[in-house]
Amino acid sequence: MAASCRLKPLSRVAVSGGTHGNEMSGVYLAKHWLRDPMELQRDSFAVTPFLGNPCAIEKCVRYVGRDLNRTFTTEFLSSAEAEDEPYEVVQARKINQTYGPKGSAQAFDFMFDLHNTTANMGSCLIVDSEESLLPMHMCHYIQTHYTRSPCPIYLYKLPGEETYSINSVAKAGLALELGPQPQRVVRADLFAQMRALMACALDFIELFNKGTVFPAFEIEAYKITGLMDYPRYPDGEISAMVHPKLQDKDFLPLNPGDPIFQTFSGEEILYKDGTTIYPAFINEAAYYEKKVAFAKMEKHTFSMPGLQRE
Amino acid sequence: MAASCRLKPLSRVAVSGGTHGNEMSGVYLAKHWLRDPMELQRDSFAVTPFLGNPCAIEKCVRYVGRDLNRTFTTEFLSSAEAEDEPYEVVQARKINQTYGPKGSAQAFDFMFDLHNTTANMGSCLIVDSEESLLPMHMCHYIQTHYTRSPCPIYLYKLPGEETYSINSVAKAGLALELGPQPQRVVRADLFAQMRALMACALDFIELFNKGTVFPAFEIEAYKITGLMDYPRYPDGEISAMVHPKLQDKDFLPLNPGDPIFQTFSGEEILYKDGTTIYPAFINEAAYYEKKVAFAKMEKHTFSMPGLQRE
Repeated sequence: MAASCRLKPLSRVAVSGGTHGNEMSGVYLAKHWLRDPMELQRDSFAVTPFLGNPCAIEKCVRYVGRDLNRTFTTEFLSSAEAEDEPYEVVQARKINQTYGPKGSAQAFDFMFDLHNTTANMGSCLIVDSEESLLPMHMCHYIQTHYTRSPCPIYLYKLPGEETYSINSVAKAGLALELGPQPQRVVRADLFAQMRALMACALDFIELFNKGTVFPAFEIEAYKITGLMDYPRYPDGEISAMVHPKLQDKDFLPLNPGDPIFQTFSGEEILYKDGTTIYPAFINEAAYYEKKVAFAKMEKHTFSMPGLQRE
Repeated sequence: MAASCRLKPLSRVAVSGGTHGNEMSGVYLAKHWLRDPMELQRDSFAVTPFLGNPCAIEKCVRYVGRDLNRTFTTEFLSSAEAEDEPYEVVQARKINQTYGPKGSAQAFDFMFDLHNTTANMGSCLIVDSEESLLPMHMCHYIQTHYTRSPCPIYLYKLPGEETYSINSVAKAGLALELGPQPQRVVRADLFAQMRALMACALDFIELFNKGTVFPAFEIEAYKITGLMDYPRYPDGEISAMVHPKLQDKDFLPLNPGDPIFQTFSGEEILYKDGTTIYPAFINEAAYYEKKVAFAKMEKHTFSMPGLQRE
C-alpha cells in the first residue's frame, strides 16, 4: 500500500437497524432516527436510516426465510425472481437497488449496520478485511475517541470468500456488534453505547470530508481463521456446552490444553490445536443453528497508510 | 392454619423441561435426564422427566401457537377439541391426561417446571401462593441448603385468579426460574445451578417421605400485586426502555420517585406510586409482547406451620 491515500469525500451514507430483527439496540435506534433524524445530520452529509429486515422486525425474529446478512452475494443478488424464494432474497435485491448496486459507481459511499450478540464482545467493530482503508481509519478514530468500553476490531472475511453482508452493497462499511445483550431485549446501557459509537463515527466522516489529514498508524485487529462447532451425539444433538472458563472470555487468549466445552454429564473437553487463538462470538444464540460455538480468531498488528480526502 | 400438618408421602413426581422451548437450561437438563435418568432416582421415589413443549423445543421458540404455561385453565383443559386450535391447547390436554387430571385424586403428587429468564432473578423459586405448604417447606429447605446463589420466592397467583401453569395439573408444584440467561443460549453455570437446585429439592422429598419432621418457620417471600407496562407512542410502539438504574435490580426496593424508564430521546420517567415495591422479571424478553416491563412485588414474611408425612 502507498504511504498515504486520497479518497473522495463521503456524501451518501446509510445505516441499517434490524438487519437481524431480534437485535434490539439497532432496531430501536433506527426506529428512533426515522422519527427524529436530527442526530444523523452533519454539515457535510446526512445519514439515511432504514430498517434492514422489516418483516423479521415485525415478528421479532432474526430472519423469516434465510439470514438476510448472508444474502448479499452474486448468487442471490443476480438470481432470477422466483415465486417460492425466501423473503430475504427479495429484500436483499431491494436494498441492493436502493443503496447499491454492489460494486457499482452509483453505490452509496458508506453503510453502517447495527447488531447485537449474546456474546461478551463489548463494542466490537466489524470490517470485511484490513484492506478496507477508510473503515480501518474509522475504527482507529473510534478506538481513540470512544473510551467507555473496549472496541476490538473483527475482520470477518475468510481468504478467497466473497463479501456477503448488507453493508457490502455500499462502497465501504462498518458493522457495530454490541454485547452481551439477549435477543429481543433492549438494554439502555448498550443502546447509549451504540448511539455514542455512531456519533463518533459520523464525527470521523465529517472531519474526513472537511479535509483533516489522518496520519499512518499501527493497529491491532482480530482476523477470523475458522469456526468451532459444539461436540455432538451421533444423532446430531449437541452433547456439551461452552465451558464456564471460556464463557464470556471473547478476544482473550485460548491456549492449547485450555478447557473449551463441558459435556452435560460433566466431562471437560480441551482445546487441542497447536496455537493460541482469540475466540469471539462465544456462545452466540443465533450460531447454534450455524453449528458455531465460537469463531477462531488470530491477533494481528497492521500498518495502515495515512488518509485524506481528494 | 394448624401449627403442624401431616401430608401423604410423594410417590409420583414429574419434571418438565422446555415448557418454553427457548429456555435452554431446562431443555438440555430434561434431554440429559431422558438419556440418563439416574440422578432423578431416590430410595423412596423416582422423578419422571418430560419435554413440556416438544414442537416449540424443535423450533427453539417460546411457543408455537400460544403460551403453554398459560393454558392449564378450565377454559382450555375442558374445551371441546377443534381443528384450528393452537398446538399448545392440544399439548396441555395431553399433559393434563398424563400427569393430572388437574384437581383430581389421580393427579401426580408433585411437578417441577424448569425456566430461564433474561432478568437478573438469580435462582428464583416460583410457587402459586403461600398457602401451598409443601412447596413452601421445599423452598425453605432449598434456601437453607443451597447457598451458591440467592433463592428468592416468587408467589405468582393474583388474588382470585385461577392457576394456569403446567405444574398446576399436579397436586403441588415448584417452578425454577434461573437468570439472567438469553433465550436460545445454554450457560454452563446456570445449567449447574439448576441441576444442583433439583438435587436439593429431591433430597427434601426423600427426607419428607422417610418421616423427617420439618418444624414451623417464618419466611420472606415476594408476592405479585400487578404488572407495569412500558411507556408507548400513540401507535402502540414502546417509547422507552427500562432505566439503567433499574436494569438488573430484581427484588431490590424501588421507591416512589426512583427512575424506572428512559425514553429513546433520553428523558427519565419516575416511579409514581405511593409505596415501595420489589420489581421482578425486569426487562424479560418474552414479556414485551405481554406488555410487561416488570412485575410489581410486595415483600412479606409468612409464618408457616410444621410439616411431616402421615
